Amino acid sequence: MFDFIPTHNCGMLREEHVEDAVTLSGWVHRHRDHGGLIFVDLRDRFGLTQLVFDPEKNATLHAEAEKLHSEWVISIKGHVRKRAEGMTNPKLSTGDIEIIVHEMDVLSKAKTPPFSIADETINVNEELRLKYRYLDIRRGNIIKKLVTRHQAMLATRQYMDAQGFIEVQTPVLAKSTPEGARDYLVPSRVYPGTFYALPQSPQLFKQLLMVSGLDRYYQIASCFRDEDLRAERQPEHTQIDIEMSFATSKQLFPIIERLIQTIFKECINVDITAPFREMSYHTCIERYGTDKPDLRFGMELHTLDDIVEQSEFGVFLEQLQGGGTVKGLCVRGGAGISRKGIDNYTAFVGTFGIKGLAWMKKQDDELSSGVAKFFTKQLQQEIMQRLDVKENDLIFMVADEKGRCNQALDHLRRKLARDQGLVDPNKYEPLWVTDFPLFSWNDEEQRLESEHHPFTSPALEDLHLLDKDPMKVSSSSYDLVINGHELASGSQRIHNPELQEKIFRTLKLSPEEINNRFGFFVEALKYGTPPHLGIGIGFDRLVMILTKTDNIRDVIAFPKTQKASDLMMACPSSVSQEQLKELQISITNTEFSLK
Amino acid sequence: MFDFIPTHNCGMLREEHVEDAVTLSGWVHRHRDHGGLIFVDLRDRFGLTQLVFDPEKNATLHAEAEKLHSEWVISIKGHVRKRAEGMTNPKLSTGDIEIIVHEMDVLSKAKTPPFSIADETINVNEELRLKYRYLDIRRGNIIKKLVTRHQAMLATRQYMDAQGFIEVQTPVLAKSTPEGARDYLVPSRVYPGTFYALPQSPQLFKQLLMVSGLDRYYQIASCFRDEDLRAERQPEHTQIDIEMSFATSKQLFPIIERLIQTIFKECINVDITAPFREMSYHTCIERYGTDKPDLRFGMELHTLDDIVEQSEFGVFLEQLQGGGTVKGLCVRGGAGISRKGIDNYTAFVGTFGIKGLAWMKKQDDELSSGVAKFFTKQLQQEIMQRLDVKENDLIFMVADEKGRCNQALDHLRRKLARDQGLVDPNKYEPLWVTDFPLFSWNDEEQRLESEHHPFTSPALEDLHLLDKDPMKVSSSSYDLVINGHELASGSQRIHNPELQEKIFRTLKLSPEEINNRFGFFVEALKYGTPPHLGIGIGFDRLVMILTKTDNIRDVIAFPKTQKASDLMMACPSSVSQEQLKELQISITNTEFSLK
Repeated sequence: MFDFIPTHNCGMLREEHVEDAVTLSGWVHRHRDHGGLIFVDLRDRFGLTQLVFDPEKNATLHAEAEKLHSEWVISIKGHVRKRAEGMTNPKLSTGDIEIIVHEMDVLSKAKTPPFSIADETINVNEELRLKYRYLDIRRGNIIKKLVTRHQAMLATRQYMDAQGFIEVQTPVLAKSTPEGARDYLVPSRVYPGTFYALPQSPQLFKQLLMVSGLDRYYQIASCFRDEDLRAERQPEHTQIDIEMSFATSKQLFPIIERLIQTIFKECINVDITAPFREMSYHTCIERYGTDKPDLRFGMELHTLDDIVEQSEFGVFLEQLQGGGTVKGLCVRGGAGISRKGIDNYTAFVGTFGIKGLAWMKKQDDELSSGVAKFFTKQLQQEIMQRLDVKENDLIFMVADEKGRCNQALDHLRRKLARDQGLVDPNKYEPLWVTDFPLFSWNDEEQRLESEHHPFTSPALEDLHLLDKDPMKVSSSSYDLVINGHELASGSQRIHNPELQEKIFRTLKLSPEEINNRFGFFVEALKYGTPPHLGIGIGFDRLVMILTKTDNIRDVIAFPKTQKASDLMMACPSSVSQEQLKELQISITNTEFSLK
Repeated sequence: MFDFIPTHNCGMLREEHVEDAVTLSGWVHRHRDHGGLIFVDLRDRFGLTQLVFDPEKNATLHAEAEKLHSEWVISIKGHVRKRAEGMTNPKLSTGDIEIIVHEMDVLSKAKTPPFSIADETINVNEELRLKYRYLDIRRGNIIKKLVTRHQAMLATRQYMDAQGFIEVQTPVLAKSTPEGARDYLVPSRVYPGTFYALPQSPQLFKQLLMVSGLDRYYQIASCFRDEDLRAERQPEHTQIDIEMSFATSKQLFPIIERLIQTIFKECINVDITAPFREMSYHTCIERYGTDKPDLRFGMELHTLDDIVEQSEFGVFLEQLQGGGTVKGLCVRGGAGISRKGIDNYTAFVGTFGIKGLAWMKKQDDELSSGVAKFFTKQLQQEIMQRLDVKENDLIFMVADEKGRCNQALDHLRRKLARDQGLVDPNKYEPLWVTDFPLFSWNDEEQRLESEHHPFTSPALEDLHLLDKDPMKVSSSSYDLVINGHELASGSQRIHNPELQEKIFRTLKLSPEEINNRFGFFVEALKYGTPPHLGIGIGFDRLVMILTKTDNIRDVIAFPKTQKASDLMMACPSSVSQEQLKELQISITNTEFSLK
C-alpha cells in the first residue's frame, strides 16, 4: 500500500526545505499543462503547494498526472526544489518552491462539484452551498471561521477555569417550562403521552447548581428554540452560560470584561479597553433610542420638547399635545446632503411609521432652511446649543409617540452613520446597559411579562412598588452590547422563594401552573439559597463579530435554514410507522410526511 | 445592605491570617452551644471554618446566632484568632483558627433537608438523592466528581488543541438514521409529520468534516440513545469524539495514548505507561474469554482440547464431540479454597449456563483431587505445563460451546481475582484490542450486522472474502480497554463510495433505505474523500474510572434514572394540548399523560 502519511502540510514548505524528500497528500486544486510539464496545485486547509510532473524524468507518472481532475485526492512523494527565476509566486506562502514528483497514488477520485472549490470569489446560491455544505466548508472561508470559533471556545474555557469556574454539562433532555419561545419536544417511549423538552437555556439548572453550593459555574451550552426564525437565529444556538454565588455585578462585570478582552486578543489580536462603559436602560433610550446602541460613533439623540413648545411649528406642537415627543440629531457636515438624499431619509423613517422628517441646515452661522422658519433666533440658538450644531451641519427632527420616535431615530442614526462612513469596522465599543424595567406589558394577553425572565431580581429599592406600580419597578439586570449588537444578557437572581412566588403570581401564573412548571425549583430555593447572579453570552454572535460576518450560518458547521431544515441531510424527515408506534403518537397532519 | 462578598473562602484561613478582618459567606454546617459560647461551622465547597459568637462581646449577635439552623445561608464579618490550646482540629485545614464574629446577616433560611448534608456517611436512598439532587450535590461527594469531570474536559481540550485538532460543534437536531439503538425523535412544527432525531453519535458529521478538508476534528459531544437502560447507561452520554484524515492507527494510537496519559496525570496525578499493549480480538477471546480483558492480573485462559481428547473424562469428551471446547485457568495458591468455595464458583458459572466446573489441586507435586483421576500422569504434566501450575494452585476447567465457555470463564476469572485480592484499584492497564470481525450474525433477522458500524473499513487483505465468506472478514477497528472496561472504540473508515454502498448492500439494506438514510452521505464520499479514521472515547466511563465509582449517575450533574426520568424536575411530563396541536401530533396512549 502507498504510504500516504504526509511529512508536511501543503502550506509549510519554504526555501529552507529545498532538496528535502517529502510526502504530501491533499486535493487537486488546479492543474495545467505547460509545454510538456504538468503543474498541479495541491491543496489542504493549510495552503497550496505546486507539484511538477516532468515527462522526461518519468513518462508513466506524467501520463498518470494527465488524467487528474479537480478535487481528486492524491498523495505524492517527491523532493523540494527552488522555483525557476521569474516563476515564484509571492502571493503564496509556498511560492518560492515546488515539488518534483517521483511517485503518486490517487486516494480518491471526485465528481465535478456543483460549484467551484478553487475560486472562492464566485458567488454561489446559499441553498446550494448548504446542500453541499462539506464542499462549501472545503472552499476555506467557512473553515477559517470554524477555527476562530474553536479558538474562542478554548480561550473561554482556559480563562474561566483560571477564574475558578467549573464547567458543568446540563441535560439536553429536560422539562418543558415554556416561557417566551416555543419548546422543542421529545416524546418519551417509556412514559407514553409525556415529553421531554430541549432546554431554551440552562437557566434553572445553573441556579440549582448555585443552590447546590457550586459557587462558580460556566458552560458553553446548546440552547434550543422552536421559533419562526429571524435571519440571525438558528433553532439551536450556543451560549457561554455563567453563574456565580455570593457576588453582585461589581464582581461579575470585571470577570466578563476580561473574558471578552481575552477572546478578542487571542482570536483576532485586538485590544479592548476595560472597564467597559455603563449606562442605564433609560439613559440609553434617551440618548440613542435603543437599548443596544452602537457607540462607535456619536450623533446622539436629544429631546427637544421644551424648545418646540415655544415654537410655532404646528405639526410638532400637535404631537406634543397628543402626548408625543420631539427628538433630534445632528449630522456633522451633513449640510451637503442633497434634497433628494433628505427625501430618501424621510422615506426611510416612514417605514417605521413616522410621517415627516423635519430638517435644518446651519450655514453662515444660522439655521436657514427646512423648518427653520418656525423657530425664533433664540430658539434656534437653543437647538444649536443642545445638539452641538456646527457650521455645515444638518439637523433631523422627528415628532411622534415616544417609542416610535426612538425606534425611527435609532435606525436613522445608524443608517446615517453608515452612509457618512462613520462606522469603523475595526473598532469595538462595548457597553453595559443596566437597570432594565422588570416587566413589560403584554397588550394581547392583558398581563405583565418579564422583560428578562421571571428569575430576575427586582431592584431592592423598588420592591415597595411591586404591588401598586409594577411597571415602574427596575430590575437588577444588565446587557452587554457591542457595536449595536446585544452580546450578553444577565441579572441578579431572586434567591428568596417567597419573592419568587410573588413574581410568578404578578405574572398571573396560576398556583397550578407555578407548581407544575416551577414547583421543584421554588422548593429548591427553600433549602438555603445563596445570593447569586449570572449571564449568558451569545456565542454565535460573538464569533460573528470576531469573523466580521452578518450571516450566523457562516459560523456554524452544519447550520439550518430559516425554516429550520438541514438541506444537506434532508432533515427533518419522515420516520417509520414502527418508530411512531413505539412512541405511541400519531400524526394528525401528513402534508410533509411521505414515507 | 450587608456586604456579603467574601474576602476568603471557608477552606483557606490559616494561622498566618490571625488578626485579619474577614468576611465569610456560606452554609451553617453544624452549630453547638458550649457553655455560653456558640460555635458554628460555616461551610462552602472549599471547606469549613469555625465561627464563635461570644455573649460577653455582643449579646444581641449571640442571641441571633442562637436562632440559626443547619443549612441557613449566612454572611459574617469578624477577625481571625488562634484556637485555644487543645481546641485545634488537625483533621480540618482551617483547624488551627476560628473567627470571632462581629456582624452577621442571614441571607437565606432553610427548611430541614430530607437527608443530612453534614453527615455524608449516612447512606441515603438513591431515589431520594436524585429528587433533591441539588442537596445531594451539596454534600460534597458529587461536587468533587464534577470538578474532576471539568478538569478532564479541559485537559482534553488543551491537549487536543496542542495536537492541531479543531473542536467543531455538530447539530443536536439531526436526521433519523436508526442503526443499532433507537433514536429520540423531535417533531417538526414547520413540516408537520416529519421529525428530527437526536444523534446517537456525531459519526456522519465528523466524516463529512473530513470530506470538507478539516483534517483533525474533535468534540466533547452529547450522544443520545433511547434504550432500555443498563446500569451504566444514560439516555444522554458524553463522548470525546475524534476524527483525522491522511492517517492510520499508527498515527492515531500515540495521540490517544498521550491524551489518556495527560488526563490521568492532570486529574489524579497518575502516570500511565505508553505505548499501550495491543492484542487482536481473537487473541483476547482466546486468552481472556472477552474482548475487554482486565489486565491488572494474570490468570489467563488456556484451551485444553488436545489434552482432554486423550483423557478418559467422558463429560468433557462429549462436549468436544459436540463441537464444544475445553478451557481452563489456574488460581495461584488456590488450593486453600474450600469445597464449599468451589461449590459457590460452580453455582456462579451455572448462571452463565455452564453445567459443571471441573477442578484439580496441585499438592505434593501432583494433581490429586477433583477430576484428576480421569487424566494420566502424562496428561496431568501437560496440563500443569500449559497452565503454569505450581504447588498449592487450583485449576478450574469448563467444557461447553465456545461462546458460553468463554463468557463463563471471563466472569469466573474476574470473580476469582476479586475474591483473591488480585485487583489493585490504583493500577491502570490499558489495552488496544484490534482486528474485530467486520460482521456479526443477527439470527432473529437472518442477516449480517455491523460489529462496529457500517462505516468501518474492512481489512484490505480480506476484501476478497466480502462476497463469499463475509463472517471471516476482519475490520480495521480497535477498542481501547482499561481495567476490563471498554473505554473507546474506533476504526479506519470507508472512504470509497462504491465500497460503502457494497457494505450497505451486504447488510441487506434496500436501495431505497440506503438512499433515504445515507444517500446524502454516499453522495458526499464521491467528491474527493481522504482516507480517515477516528475514535469515540466514553467520557462518562473515563470520569468514573478517574473518580473510582461504578455508578454513572455519580459523574453527571443531573442524571436520569434507569427509566430515563429526571426525578428532580419530574420529567418527562405532560404538555399542553396547544403544544401538541402546533406540532400536529396526537397521543395514542394516554396512560401517563395527566394534564
